[in-house]
Amino acid sequence: MSNENTQTTLIARQKKLAEELINADLDGMALNPGPSLVYLTGLHFHLSERPVVVLFKPEAKPVIVYPEFESLKLNNLPYEIEPFPYGEDPSTWGSVFSKAVHSIKLAGKKTSVEPRQLRFLEYSLISGAAPETVFRSGEAILAKLRMHKDQAELEAMRRAVDIAQKALNATIPEIKIGMTEKQVAAELTLQLLKAGCDPEVPFSPIVSSGPNAANPHATPTERKLATGDLLVIDWGASFNGYISDITRTFALGKLEPEFEHICKVVLEANTAGREYAKPGIVAEQLDHATRIVVETAGYGKYFTHRTGHGIGMEGHEDPYIRAGNQLILEPGMTFTIEPGVYLPGRNGVRIEDDVLITADGCESLTTLPREVRKLS
Amino acid sequence: MSNENTQTTLIARQKKLAEELINADLDGMALNPGPSLVYLTGLHFHLSERPVVVLFKPEAKPVIVYPEFESLKLNNLPYEIEPFPYGEDPSTWGSVFSKAVHSIKLAGKKTSVEPRQLRFLEYSLISGAAPETVFRSGEAILAKLRMHKDQAELEAMRRAVDIAQKALNATIPEIKIGMTEKQVAAELTLQLLKAGCDPEVPFSPIVSSGPNAANPHATPTERKLATGDLLVIDWGASFNGYISDITRTFALGKLEPEFEHICKVVLEANTAGREYAKPGIVAEQLDHATRIVVETAGYGKYFTHRTGHGIGMEGHEDPYIRAGNQLILEPGMTFTIEPGVYLPGRNGVRIEDDVLITADGCESLTTLPREVRKLS
Repeated sequence: MSNENTQTTLIARQKKLAEELINADLDGMALNPGPSLVYLTGLHFHLSERPVVVLFKPEAKPVIVYPEFESLKLNNLPYEIEPFPYGEDPSTWGSVFSKAVHSIKLAGKKTSVEPRQLRFLEYSLISGAAPETVFRSGEAILAKLRMHKDQAELEAMRRAVDIAQKALNATIPEIKIGMTEKQVAAELTLQLLKAGCDPEVPFSPIVSSGPNAANPHATPTERKLATGDLLVIDWGASFNGYISDITRTFALGKLEPEFEHICKVVLEANTAGREYAKPGIVAEQLDHATRIVVETAGYGKYFTHRTGHGIGMEGHEDPYIRAGNQLILEPGMTFTIEPGVYLPGRNGVRIEDDVLITADGCESLTTLPREVRKLS
Repeated sequence: MSNENTQTTLIARQKKLAEELINADLDGMALNPGPSLVYLTGLHFHLSERPVVVLFKPEAKPVIVYPEFESLKLNNLPYEIEPFPYGEDPSTWGSVFSKAVHSIKLAGKKTSVEPRQLRFLEYSLISGAAPETVFRSGEAILAKLRMHKDQAELEAMRRAVDIAQKALNATIPEIKIGMTEKQVAAELTLQLLKAGCDPEVPFSPIVSSGPNAANPHATPTERKLATGDLLVIDWGASFNGYISDITRTFALGKLEPEFEHICKVVLEANTAGREYAKPGIVAEQLDHATRIVVETAGYGKYFTHRTGHGIGMEGHEDPYIRAGNQLILEPGMTFTIEPGVYLPGRNGVRIEDDVLITADGCESLTTLPREVRKLS
């Protein structure tokens, strides 16, 4: 995105937010540092022990409470914002928050927040400044704004996929029996950075082998790769703040017949999901489309998580591909399809792609071979 | 730490927490994933869209609310914990939280939380399950527990310093006029991983040059390094979850006389701080000891942040070395000493060490040369 585009984009996004707040009968929104704040303001702040909050209200100039020493970040913004800086003494925070909340007249009003992002720190400062304020979740509004990716966002996501795929291809030749999961994860992270990932890797790769592969959210351990293991690698890159999130599973030497079988089942489920996804499909139907394959094979109770999650500025965002989600898929939405089978204490398989809903179907942004390849 | 030590340590820490809760007239504590949860339970959970909360109460078995598919993480814990798992449908979270809060009898009680860690997500589930619950900050209690590092913690911190220092030494020869700040940051991150940093780098290095160096919390940009720049590099490693956080400033070619001068001033301030720190000193006195050097030189208003912050499992934790903090420094405390001078729009300098309060003084864990070295 050129600078000029970014500026137009930010103003348009703030305008859209104002419309959605009015539609939802909400008076405003309070955001702290994170992807939604970047999306709406272009402002990158650390989520630190010092609170930063931007308050939005339709028809009003947004206000920001922030540490004074970060004032340079407010230079040359393409929109107006009213600054409420504070110094190094936390005992002054309360009064600065009070001035900000009253300046934009959000005291006592219906203020939406991000439940997964706003911390008790900021929540208690805002509610302390105006105890009668009513807090509501703004998640649905922000999801609606962020769920439909524009061309510049998709371009960044394609780069993030490309970087992640290059990094895995550079890592595969280094993987040997006897290496630890941690060593594989370190090598892969190094290759992500070499391939052009943003300096901050979006999430630490999951590298899990044998019995550890039965835990879908394992942390890499000192366990050494052994013959007969399945090796699950779940990794991603970020490019300009947009993320990829991929999983491939490898076989180390000869597998037990049942392990060979679950590899086939999961590949079939992944394929079924990618073929089923298109505009108009309900999210929970897509979840069902992969799950039914695993259930039919008799492994339903070992597919212990949802089929996928949205992806963009965050590794996990809307739309969630799970039972109970009635959201209708639309062009421009991006999410993962990642069925898995986990046999407790034994082994596990997951195959995860990042897909885009197109005008008439689904495009997989990820293109690495999906079958469980033998590594040694 | 051996496994056996870890187990004894976790039980001892939970016992100490119970004592401190009673001392502070609090009924319990609610923690979500993060360093304090790891410190007290050894449990590593992602901070995701799925809430995880552990509730502690003196004389009671702790309880945990968590996603069912992560059950394996609760195997083989060295202490008892009552599990409240939930499935993939968020509409069930409320009732599971309600069962957990009532099972440990914290409904309506004074429950302490971490304001910088607990999110509105978990807060609203706990308060929804028991609206009469009174929330208090548990920061002081957790700080008291975590501020005094034991030998195993210090050993990990020394390794984190060693890794960071090796990584910088490997990066320096690669730094050339014309490189971008982002390129330097990527190379340094790569060297951190090569040197043995945990797979997740604790924070993205700050690499800021020339006018950008006037922003203490700059993000690396596409700006190319130029002759006459000061180059501020603020980076760290983590080892087994413990962190280092160092800053060194370099000169690219010949500097303006005033820039040479502020380098000397900041080095003198850093030295004054390290020489002044010892048990019995009050945190704000130590802040003053570095600040007075900068003020005397006439640059007081350009030293726009506190002298330092605690360091351990987090890059920023207690004790904070700032005006107004009456905390008395004690042996075993670890923190940064990082004076800086920032000339807006022109250039900046910061020199940051990680120090340990010893029985009779202060040991710098960081040992790289502190003077502003010329790079080309």
